[in-house]
Amino acid sequence: MTALAATRPTVDLADTPVVTIDLDRMERNIQRLQAYCDAHGIANRPHIKTHKIPAIAHRQLAAGARGITCQKLGEAQVMLDAGITDIFLTFNVLGEAKLARLRALASRPGVRLSVACDNLPVAQALSGAFADAAEPLAVLVECDTGMGRNGVQTPADAVALAQAIARLPGLRFAGIMTYPIMPDTRAFFEATLAMLERTGLPAAVVSTGGTPVYRQAHEVPGVTEHRAGTYVFNDRATVAAGAATWDDCAMRIRTTVVSRPTPTRAILDAGSKTLSSDLLTLQGYGHIVEYPDAVIVRLSEEHGHVDLSACARKPEIGEIVTVIPNHTCVVTNLHAQLVGVRDGRVEVVWDVAARGLVR
Amino acid sequence: MTALAATRPTVDLADTPVVTIDLDRMERNIQRLQAYCDAHGIANRPHIKTHKIPAIAHRQLAAGARGITCQKLGEAQVMLDAGITDIFLTFNVLGEAKLARLRALASRPGVRLSVACDNLPVAQALSGAFADAAEPLAVLVECDTGMGRNGVQTPADAVALAQAIARLPGLRFAGIMTYPIMPDTRAFFEATLAMLERTGLPAAVVSTGGTPVYRQAHEVPGVTEHRAGTYVFNDRATVAAGAATWDDCAMRIRTTVVSRPTPTRAILDAGSKTLSSDLLTLQGYGHIVEYPDAVIVRLSEEHGHVDLSACARKPEIGEIVTVIPNHTCVVTNLHAQLVGVRDGRVEVVWDVAARGLVR
Repeated sequence: MTALAATRPTVDLADTPVVTIDLDRMERNIQRLQAYCDAHGIANRPHIKTHKIPAIAHRQLAAGARGITCQKLGEAQVMLDAGITDIFLTFNVLGEAKLARLRALASRPGVRLSVACDNLPVAQALSGAFADAAEPLAVLVECDTGMGRNGVQTPADAVALAQAIARLPGLRFAGIMTYPIMPDTRAFFEATLAMLERTGLPAAVVSTGGTPVYRQAHEVPGVTEHRAGTYVFNDRATVAAGAATWDDCAMRIRTTVVSRPTPTRAILDAGSKTLSSDLLTLQGYGHIVEYPDAVIVRLSEEHGHVDLSACARKPEIGEIVTVIPNHTCVVTNLHAQLVGVRDGRVEVVWDVAARGLVR
Repeated sequence: MTALAATRPTVDLADTPVVTIDLDRMERNIQRLQAYCDAHGIANRPHIKTHKIPAIAHRQLAAGARGITCQKLGEAQVMLDAGITDIFLTFNVLGEAKLARLRALASRPGVRLSVACDNLPVAQALSGAFADAAEPLAVLVECDTGMGRNGVQTPADAVALAQAIARLPGLRFAGIMTYPIMPDTRAFFEATLAMLERTGLPAAVVSTGGTPVYRQAHEVPGVTEHRAGTYVFNDRATVAAGAATWDDCAMRIRTTVVSRPTPTRAILDAGSKTLSSDLLTLQGYGHIVEYPDAVIVRLSEEHGHVDLSACARKPEIGEIVTVIPNHTCVVTNLHAQLVGVRDGRVEVVWDVAARGLVR
């Protein structure tokens, strides 16, 4: 037995539910997206909300990522503490406590921290916090190019906010961003970039986001970087979108059949507190690898209700089955640890370090 | 300033999202259900999955609860470690690792641990683990009286499993249980209890569960105890079921309006990683107390998408609003801490001790 094998963490993969990450699949996923970005000269800035684990972010950086993306200040703090210095925080930061923390994080030596912003009150609050900072804070204007979430609604509004940011003390207009790439993204960005050029405020960074759409990033006018999160693990929604195969799905939840109350019903020891109740427009709450015709029709908090009507072969009580979840990012957030496996053996156990840091 | 005030925890209620528990409301909820149980001579065995906090379980016991209910072994372990000794684990325990832990927990001095079981393989596994135990393990037969989850399907099956349990070494048949109380529960239990009597296996415990239905517990034949969880906090689903008022909802999530991209859209800093995506057949992902006509129409992981179309008055960017969640139990599970408030001031900060212990 080698020294490596001797020190291998002793997680019992038969003690369910347990969230495993197939390392070969994860490494292929990291390489595949990086290769796309490299081929098109696009900076890769993976979103760490999917894994919340500094060691995985370091693997993404080692593969060639420019920096990372975080969705909340607590995530950024954990990643900075782990030595990752180039971070784009894609959320409007508001409130005295958060602004003070943002200022403190941005002031650490060697840190390159930028933030998104989609409205003037947030820009003014950021300016208030950074007015006397040694370096201005880099701020990107968030554009709603069709998703209907955050973002300025028109190119003219994007330019107006960019101008306001450029005028506000302590801030630097750094570019434009959107999530995800939508049918209208190209026209929106083209118009915005042209107007910014005319106003003498060129966008240094043009940032797009999303996993299912990442192969369209190079078609977006002026794009300089892309932010994808889910690609590192992939999930049932990515497969449904045609952007990955089952074999690309690195996250797999091992769960035990604890009851077979009727001939067509199985109960798993994985419910909404393990799989989350995210449907993402899909039918059912996950894909059972060994029983692809089974449907996880309902979740209680700790029970998965499975309809076996369409299954020729049916699982027995005590059998362990493998679930590919609908949405990998929310599963990570529910678990204290993810277990990295290779060839079915445990190679590493990661604490989900940035989980539960809600603010 | 009193000593109490001087040592008050310093949680910033303006730093959102933050999950608050109104202590006056929680205490009223605890008293109200206890009074119902006392009036009907029913033992109260609250389900701690809702809060996962030993200090709150201790408050329920101090108010008169007989013991507690847990849904997973990790919860039971945390509660036992906190000195709570009378625990009913309402889940089929399977797998060597869990059976060994169950045996170890049940063997602690002074512990009264019982488990639910709905099938013979689980009963046999339990027997294998307890065959040489000093005390037999108390096992209740779980009955599916209409929910369609776990449970034997007929009174005859309940009796057959009870007989098997009674014969298996290391086990003791302790009674019957179901969740929740359904229209068919009474008939199912009446038939089962009569058959058990005839076979010389009386049910010492007849246990029902659920918050919306708790006021029906005394109508269930032979009932000896009731298990309710959500009642301690209540939530939008409890209100929708007519079992609580908004004023009974102790859990309230403070969240900031971080964007107003359009006249009818607001974005909150609370998404599916804060509120969970549980709908429980409701429309929208929570009730905004200050804007009751607003609808949380969609959740991203960290964004709540709010439709303000029906609101005469609309919130501004930076405004903090209060959300009563659809399902309080899954919100607890998403957060590292709950903040107990009284009259709007922080009185206590609890770690969600049994959270993330997935196995």
